[in-house]
Amino acid sequence: MPVDTIHWEGDRPGFARIIDQTLLPTELKILDLKTVDDMFDAIKRLAVRGAPAIGVAAGYGVLLGIQGHANGSADDVFGRTKETCAWLARARPTAVNLFWALERMAARAARDYGAKKNGREIVDGLFDEAHTIWREDREICRKIGAVGADLLKDGDTVLTHCNAGALATADYGTALAPIYVARDQGKTLRVFADETRPLLQGARLTAWELHEAKIDVTLITDNMAGRVMFEGKIDAVFVGADRIAKNGDTANKIGTYSVAVLAREHGIPFYVCAPLSTFDTKIAHGDEIPIEERGADEITQGFGKRTAPLGVKVYNPAFDVTPARFIRGIITEVGIIERPNTARVEEALRRGGRL
Amino acid sequence: MPVDTIHWEGDRPGFARIIDQTLLPTELKILDLKTVDDMFDAIKRLAVRGAPAIGVAAGYGVLLGIQGHANGSADDVFGRTKETCAWLARARPTAVNLFWALERMAARAARDYGAKKNGREIVDGLFDEAHTIWREDREICRKIGAVGADLLKDGDTVLTHCNAGALATADYGTALAPIYVARDQGKTLRVFADETRPLLQGARLTAWELHEAKIDVTLITDNMAGRVMFEGKIDAVFVGADRIAKNGDTANKIGTYSVAVLAREHGIPFYVCAPLSTFDTKIAHGDEIPIEERGADEITQGFGKRTAPLGVKVYNPAFDVTPARFIRGIITEVGIIERPNTARVEEALRRGGRL
Repeated sequence: MPVDTIHWEGDRPGFARIIDQTLLPTELKILDLKTVDDMFDAIKRLAVRGAPAIGVAAGYGVLLGIQGHANGSADDVFGRTKETCAWLARARPTAVNLFWALERMAARAARDYGAKKNGREIVDGLFDEAHTIWREDREICRKIGAVGADLLKDGDTVLTHCNAGALATADYGTALAPIYVARDQGKTLRVFADETRPLLQGARLTAWELHEAKIDVTLITDNMAGRVMFEGKIDAVFVGADRIAKNGDTANKIGTYSVAVLAREHGIPFYVCAPLSTFDTKIAHGDEIPIEERGADEITQGFGKRTAPLGVKVYNPAFDVTPARFIRGIITEVGIIERPNTARVEEALRRGGRL
Repeated sequence: MPVDTIHWEGDRPGFARIIDQTLLPTELKILDLKTVDDMFDAIKRLAVRGAPAIGVAAGYGVLLGIQGHANGSADDVFGRTKETCAWLARARPTAVNLFWALERMAARAARDYGAKKNGREIVDGLFDEAHTIWREDREICRKIGAVGADLLKDGDTVLTHCNAGALATADYGTALAPIYVARDQGKTLRVFADETRPLLQGARLTAWELHEAKIDVTLITDNMAGRVMFEGKIDAVFVGADRIAKNGDTANKIGTYSVAVLAREHGIPFYVCAPLSTFDTKIAHGDEIPIEERGADEITQGFGKRTAPLGVKVYNPAFDVTPARFIRGIITEVGIIERPNTARVEEALRRGGRL
């Protein structure tokens, strides 16, 4: 493991242990979260972030809320589970994986409650479910990593954008998983990490975790990606995804689209690494993906110091959409969707039991 | 005038009045530079920057050094001029325009000294030369502006990178001159300004001067340029140039090349705005232009706060080269060099008396 973003410590009562990502890259602080409020706070202030990691955190948050009540009645445990889920859902109102994991936990409790299990058995079921979310995330990371690592030769250099690494998951990440797996296979790789303005996830998180894992990483500003490609330094681009339309159009952190255009210009293969759960089958084309606009301060005083004139207009889209035609392949836990289109995405989703 | 970057105040003895650009965008402080050491310091610490503005500053710096000695002998004045030029040249050892202007001042003194003029006449000649450098810069800005403004329709939106504006010259700038001139013609324009990491000239300087001039400017991070083009927001790209090879390949602030690739992908015309003096006729192709690499700190703690892990590798090229095939035209004081190549560049240089 390059870094241990989140895991459950002890059995019962146990607690969640996370890296406080708000202090990176200057301080590595481990937090032991022992109450549901600890977890709420950690999710809210982005101490834990990244869609898969938030899903795991949500499951553990529910455990923190109910583990002390195993001696209660089924009604009591089921009621507390629903309350805890409702509360945790308010920690980050736009985090799809948070809701997904909480619904999964609530559904497990409802199933066991419906099957007339007692309080202790319902708690047992929730522990099982939360650990399964964690384990599944790890398995998916490893599968994406294995599929992606086959694309990398010894000595290759990969460019990545934002952080879709170990810090975003409970294991090797998505976009960085091929790099970790290739390293485990004995390949020597280099990585160029875009700093990823405005929030600098590349500088703060990707550069940090690769540096910790002793993988050769070079930090650049976003506007240097074109130059390093021009200089012939890059063999492949791996990025994550926030949401993928059914035709393969991919929403990801702002700047991903520019990297994709530059990669195509230089004949460099551009890969998206994402679990099948990232596909939104209700969305046919990338045009339908809403793009969140964020506050001006992230750009005008992103570093604790004002760097733009007061009152200047700012445009701050948090994501962009990379049309499928720029994508050489989407690397998933069921293999690569080569040159994605609707038919190929549907085929993969069917193979993965998601359609 | 949008902003008054540098001018000579009073007659003799007079002084240079500049905007202290190190305090922008949060504070507008005007500095009166009354000694050659004041000017040396201002150039050295980038209180005045931008190739044309540095050229003007160099001329005025020489005046500050010699204006008190007009009653001296020709030998005294000529000697002091040479000393002053040698001293000022050390303020910024890589600023080509600094040397160019100082050589021009020294050559003027040498010519007048050789013609047996007296001390006062040599000083007169130097005043004439310094004011001519200033006036020529203003004329070139206006000519570039007039040529470029013809390309802009009422309602157009221009994207620019870095600062090649009024703050880099003694007048309307180069890349921003077409915008100022079009505004003077009654056209309403919008500008998107890339913040331009690592040193944020776009956020600190371009956004500031356009905002001051009440031109509709929107600040974005560099990695948003692709998105705003994708959204159909941009009609043209105007950038400056640090050095242009004889075939039209253009070195400019890092990130310019990415913008050029993105512009072509979206069918948006990409223009370089630069005086003929920017062409380096000793350089046939962009590949021969050396690219300065700067320190890691600009990226890892560019804003007074560390945003990357200690010890991480950084690549920080200050410039990139945009091949001529991405350039729709180079806008100069003698007109547009359309789709530049060696023959067309040579033709323009000949027309401008530079070849």
